[in-house]
Amino acid sequence: MEKLAIGIDIGGTNTVIGLVNRAGKILAEESFPTPSKKLNAQGSEEISKELLKDYIKGIANTIKLLSSQLKVDSEIVGIGIGAPNGNYHKGTIEYAPNLPFSGVVSFCELLGAEFPKVETIRLTNDANAAALGEKMYGGARHMDDFVMFTLGTGVGSGLYSNGNLVYGFDGFAGECGHNTIVENGRVCGCGGRGHLEAYCSAPGMKRTAFELLADYHDETSELAGYAYRDLTSKHIYDAAVKGDKIAKKVFEYTGNYLGQAIADTVNHFSPEAVFLFGGPVAAGDILFQPIKKSLQAHLLPVFQKRNIPVMASELDLGHAAILGASALVWQALN
Amino acid sequence: MEKLAIGIDIGGTNTVIGLVNRAGKILAEESFPTPSKKLNAQGSEEISKELLKDYIKGIANTIKLLSSQLKVDSEIVGIGIGAPNGNYHKGTIEYAPNLPFSGVVSFCELLGAEFPKVETIRLTNDANAAALGEKMYGGARHMDDFVMFTLGTGVGSGLYSNGNLVYGFDGFAGECGHNTIVENGRVCGCGGRGHLEAYCSAPGMKRTAFELLADYHDETSELAGYAYRDLTSKHIYDAAVKGDKIAKKVFEYTGNYLGQAIADTVNHFSPEAVFLFGGPVAAGDILFQPIKKSLQAHLLPVFQKRNIPVMASELDLGHAAILGASALVWQALN
Repeated sequence: MEKLAIGIDIGGTNTVIGLVNRAGKILAEESFPTPSKKLNAQGSEEISKELLKDYIKGIANTIKLLSSQLKVDSEIVGIGIGAPNGNYHKGTIEYAPNLPFSGVVSFCELLGAEFPKVETIRLTNDANAAALGEKMYGGARHMDDFVMFTLGTGVGSGLYSNGNLVYGFDGFAGECGHNTIVENGRVCGCGGRGHLEAYCSAPGMKRTAFELLADYHDETSELAGYAYRDLTSKHIYDAAVKGDKIAKKVFEYTGNYLGQAIADTVNHFSPEAVFLFGGPVAAGDILFQPIKKSLQAHLLPVFQKRNIPVMASELDLGHAAILGASALVWQALN
Repeated sequence: MEKLAIGIDIGGTNTVIGLVNRAGKILAEESFPTPSKKLNAQGSEEISKELLKDYIKGIANTIKLLSSQLKVDSEIVGIGIGAPNGNYHKGTIEYAPNLPFSGVVSFCELLGAEFPKVETIRLTNDANAAALGEKMYGGARHMDDFVMFTLGTGVGSGLYSNGNLVYGFDGFAGECGHNTIVENGRVCGCGGRGHLEAYCSAPGMKRTAFELLADYHDETSELAGYAYRDLTSKHIYDAAVKGDKIAKKVFEYTGNYLGQAIADTVNHFSPEAVFLFGGPVAAGDILFQPIKKSLQAHLLPVFQKRNIPVMASELDLGHAAILGASALVWQALN
């Protein structure tokens, strides 16, 4: 009988569900669109509850279907969920701006009602789940102290210290994307100013590109051909690879702030290594070199000496979210 | 037979030794000058070794003398040491700029040779020791997640997460005084730029006072009567209490940056509470109000809602260092 953990990744766009064994092999996987926020905006609180009920039912049915189709004899030993604004201590999703459920949703409890035999149901935010995935299946397998930064629509972090993920007093620790990097700097999605996320997320890189175009008044750059709403971080990467000066500067600028932010996190935790995860990480040296340079420049001598490794996550980008979510189960059962 | 922990505080100026019981009562205390760096600067590596040998011997003799003079029947169950650049994992003091020993000193091993029956000897930096003291005897007794910032000649931090002090991979975690607060800002003692310590230590407050005098060209301020090398943070406090505008602005400025820095640490750890320790903390509301205002302004909504308490340490300033050092012992024996 193979023991399996269910990994669920709840994203603003899609919900992905995987059946994962202890070694990190995904035996089955399925995804469907997360119900749209628009429905909720039109509807009342009651419609939102109805929507949530259907959504939970949809997840449960998918898990049951995937399990029944498996060709190996298996047992579901737990369910792990990665979700924005996930509270590990309470098993709740709280005021998630990109999900269609209002207020505080007792997600673990609701899903648990569908699986009365499954005792271990855990939930945390996506960056924490990614860090746990790295610990369980990736490059941090032998580490007790490491940190992970996730780069994407936002900037998240998962902080692993002394053999445990840091959840904090209320379950919301690890929000390094909202560290202040520039005093009175750019407006962040959270309403604050100068946060790391406003500079080093994918949209942050686009903002940097437009600032630099304006600063250098460079009409020859490939990036000068895009409207603001059309430019993506992929365009910036492609242009940088071809040697476009502005695009290359965007990566230097991004790497510089990431290095500064990582140095502050090293001051807090003195980790063995730093992992980066997410789409922009595929840029490789174009991004990692300025990060490493800036990190060394910002570190205390005691940390500089150690030349702390900054590495790409070893998890496959496409499956990391469900792997990380499933890792919550193995961690809890350890 | 009363069980006692020895608490040793190694400072650049004085070395203080105390015999402390489990409840945090200091039964005996003694201090003597830490040997001067000048001796070392003049001398060779051999003289430095000789000096260290004598220093260890002096500490051991003081402990033995204090113990023998006690009127209660007692047993020394451990020795805890707070020292700059203290490495908890290795029990070493490493490259401490204000101590007269060069390189890496195996302090726990050397002192342990004088007390063969004492198994528990632990060492960490002074801010970590202060945080442990708060956990063992102070306001954090019932907390598993809290952070402490120490304000003095420098800015230190002790980070307590998930029921344990954060030491990190190499034992040097908790260096929040060197977080970058201002991009390309003031030169810090460590060689970096824009670090919290360069703004919010006692010397940092003096630097702020002179910047503000220059900025406002205010010759009527009481602070305008001091030469740079004569002004102290006590002068600034006294002037602020009397309503001096520049002095009050120094506290606002300092509190603003402390609030920003604390917000970043809250993002990392989501602590139950924040403790402040050190001379400037005696300023009370003059310092705490701008800190709290800035902290709230810099926090994510999820943390703002919780109105995270920022409090003065409950430890007596004069004895906190040896209390904290002794707490290392009780923590290890727990």
